[in-house]
Amino acid sequence: MQEIDQERLQQQLDFILEIDKEKNVFRQTHLSGGGRAENDAEHAWHMAVMMALLSEYADDDFDLARGMLMCLIHDIVEIDAGDTYAYDEQAKTTQNDREEKAADRIFGLLPEDQAQKFRELFEEFDAGTTPEARFARVMDNVQPVLLNDANGGGDWLRHGVHRGQIEKRQQKTKQGSRSLYQLVEAIIDRNVAAGHIAPDESKTQKQE
Amino acid sequence: MQEIDQERLQQQLDFILEIDKEKNVFRQTHLSGGGRAENDAEHAWHMAVMMALLSEYADDDFDLARGMLMCLIHDIVEIDAGDTYAYDEQAKTTQNDREEKAADRIFGLLPEDQAQKFRELFEEFDAGTTPEARFARVMDNVQPVLLNDANGGGDWLRHGVHRGQIEKRQQKTKQGSRSLYQLVEAIIDRNVAAGHIAPDESKTQKQE
Repeated sequence: MQEIDQERLQQQLDFILEIDKEKNVFRQTHLSGGGRAENDAEHAWHMAVMMALLSEYADDDFDLARGMLMCLIHDIVEIDAGDTYAYDEQAKTTQNDREEKAADRIFGLLPEDQAQKFRELFEEFDAGTTPEARFARVMDNVQPVLLNDANGGGDWLRHGVHRGQIEKRQQKTKQGSRSLYQLVEAIIDRNVAAGHIAPDESKTQKQE
Repeated sequence: MQEIDQERLQQQLDFILEIDKEKNVFRQTHLSGGGRAENDAEHAWHMAVMMALLSEYADDDFDLARGMLMCLIHDIVEIDAGDTYAYDEQAKTTQNDREEKAADRIFGLLPEDQAQKFRELFEEFDAGTTPEARFARVMDNVQPVLLNDANGGGDWLRHGVHRGQIEKRQQKTKQGSRSLYQLVEAIIDRNVAAGHIAPDESKTQKQE
């Protein structure tokens, strides 16, 4: 057994305890069965399992361990920066700044080599330029669609979301998996037909 | 793009939606800061991140993707079988039966090849005979100790847990990581000294 570097281990433990707070960062998505709002840790867990299960639909081969880890950590910055709702255009203008500062602080708790590795994975996810990042972003976008669809589109109705907004966001799905993009398109069609998603901006009615 | 096997995809989606219920299976452990009880999905997420972060302390080399996936799915059976508290000896007598039935039903939702793969990962975790399983079990045992330690031992006090019980359980940590076993031993020592863990059975006082 190697002698443990106690300072290094303590930095790792500090980070592990810090990210426990991600379990209290709540999203706009609700659990299936119309339950409570989902939190970031649950969302990340679901994404990572989905990534292993749906890998056959990725347009490009990817490294599963890197991809899953990217899913697991991509929202850690929200401990400081908060959840930015996908269709909140105002909040999105400050999102990058808030998340950069959070990444400095939170990943900065780790030993330098791991801080750098986690930071790179987080930025790679954001940039979406590698196969891992592209497929992780598919998971990030498909997972809430599945929950919302199972809930009769409750979250779309509540926010008065229209088709164009969803289509725009789901371009990320198209970039990583043409097969799952087809699935999402079919789900959107069905929910527009059912009146859960407004066909266009003029038909939007926000329900409170 | 390959033609999608719609029946296969539907089985995968059914499973993905089914496991959403894991977010409502609550454990005896509480979040740091003395918050609410933790659920299985959050616990699994935390374990998988820890596995990536602490891999240097594993006694044997292991495959990170397999190990993380094992962490992520090891508690899925609790959707049907419920959480069995580590120190509830009566519930533990029926745990295997309950979990086998749950595994049949829940993994059985998947396409056959994936059902078999996930079932094997789950059983491998339970058996603890591979490097991935041994280190995943370290994560399963260390993660609640870290939270509980951060909470002044609240969960140990509430259940009147004594040192022998924790030592017995932490043999799984010893089997996968001698380094992290040292860490756990130090945490136990500190919490016995602080009166959060009874030194032996005769000193146990259950706080309600």
